[in-house]
Amino acid sequence: MSSTARTDLGRALCIITGASRGFGRTIATDMSRLVKPGSALVLTARSVDDLRALQAELAESEAGRAGLVVECVVADLSQKGGLESIVSVSKEAFSEDMDHVLLVNNAGSLGDVSRYAKAFTDMAEVDSYLSLNVSSSLCLTASVLQAFPQRPGQQRTVLNITSLCALQPFRSWVLYCTSKAAREMMFRVLAEEEPDLRVLSYSPGPLDTDMQMLARSRTADPSIRKSFSDMFAQGQLLTCEASCAKLMKLLLEDNYTTGAHVDVYDV
Amino acid sequence: MSSTARTDLGRALCIITGASRGFGRTIATDMSRLVKPGSALVLTARSVDDLRALQAELAESEAGRAGLVVECVVADLSQKGGLESIVSVSKEAFSEDMDHVLLVNNAGSLGDVSRYAKAFTDMAEVDSYLSLNVSSSLCLTASVLQAFPQRPGQQRTVLNITSLCALQPFRSWVLYCTSKAAREMMFRVLAEEEPDLRVLSYSPGPLDTDMQMLARSRTADPSIRKSFSDMFAQGQLLTCEASCAKLMKLLLEDNYTTGAHVDVYDV
Repeated sequence: MSSTARTDLGRALCIITGASRGFGRTIATDMSRLVKPGSALVLTARSVDDLRALQAELAESEAGRAGLVVECVVADLSQKGGLESIVSVSKEAFSEDMDHVLLVNNAGSLGDVSRYAKAFTDMAEVDSYLSLNVSSSLCLTASVLQAFPQRPGQQRTVLNITSLCALQPFRSWVLYCTSKAAREMMFRVLAEEEPDLRVLSYSPGPLDTDMQMLARSRTADPSIRKSFSDMFAQGQLLTCEASCAKLMKLLLEDNYTTGAHVDVYDV
Repeated sequence: MSSTARTDLGRALCIITGASRGFGRTIATDMSRLVKPGSALVLTARSVDDLRALQAELAESEAGRAGLVVECVVADLSQKGGLESIVSVSKEAFSEDMDHVLLVNNAGSLGDVSRYAKAFTDMAEVDSYLSLNVSSSLCLTASVLQAFPQRPGQQRTVLNITSLCALQPFRSWVLYCTSKAAREMMFRVLAEEEPDLRVLSYSPGPLDTDMQMLARSRTADPSIRKSFSDMFAQGQLLTCEASCAKLMKLLLEDNYTTGAHVDVYDV
């Protein structure tokens, strides 16, 4: 623990993708508690109902009652219009005296894990997966960096929610592993290019979410499927809250190496 | 040097993408010399003229005069029809007594290196790049593996032409680094899934090709651009022939770890 750790994320604009459920929802909730008054959250997801429910919950929280602005953007990230809406709403939510712009690239899909690599002959399917999971992440990040250029006294942080799958191959998870490896390299290049930016690829560990349920029920490879089932049965899955607490610790201490992959178990 | 190294690649079907120029062309030429009589090469590229010139050259070579079949497929790999043509021509070129099916995923483009990551806001541009450089490679590999399932006594080898960029970020090369990291992970997953397959990601080093000329003339980042110019000026670029000789050595010895990244300088 650093003695110089911040106790808040500043007066911040936080843009969070995939915010309606799972880990993204927990990030939104945690960030709402760690930003200073005068901050704004821009939450995006495809599901309007879940997003509205979160918005209502945050409005009633202590931060909400103290004036935290929470904007929702129902958007499909694989559509050009989706990115434009997010940037446009973010610009409106921004105010000149904010001292931190934080983008959380959390949205992502598992892809079809019921088949092995040799079954992926359909270009349209792979293109569509990579568009949602890789292209949109690059293009949203680029759009946000252009919309909020570096200013003196202002920090900009870009988070990439990554996975052990970015580093290690898992049988029958070709799409997920490929997209996570692609994204991680993308953010490493960005970190090299923009030394004034803080870039973090955070691997939250095996979380007890809907995605894990898909993993243990649909994964084609029997031994991989069993290892997920075993982790679940033995209570080894992490809660979103526990993993997100580690992420917030990293952000508050702010001494990670920019561009690095940091695993929950190393925090 | 292994004392058990083969001296040929067998009676083989070799499918090579991006075969008309640069490293792909050298792979085609080298393989034509290393396959046994009764083999076939299926060469694909977008440029019909370059492809025909190579076909004519191979027809006049010793292997060509001895009956090597060389089929050309003018195809855009990012189009569904392109993959289907390659597979269909490959099936026709195949004969039952072949003992080796070898797919070389060599085709790839550098992408626009004149801009930094924060300039990539256009989803259509990034989607199109990933389709050509990532999706097509997965879908062609899957299609070829389905068209030529494992048989007793037959070897199947899948090559991925990779780069140092799959492992290290380079400023202003976000598309290239991202696609190479993605492809490499894709082939690592494939190697885990298909233990009967031989999978190799070969990094050919800095080659004296058109792509290197683009690299040293167009790269946005001044220090990266200079390092490429310096390598060129100081004669440090490798010829395609020298690097391809190392690749052929790896294929003949056939004792690399399947799925591994092997760099030219480590051979």
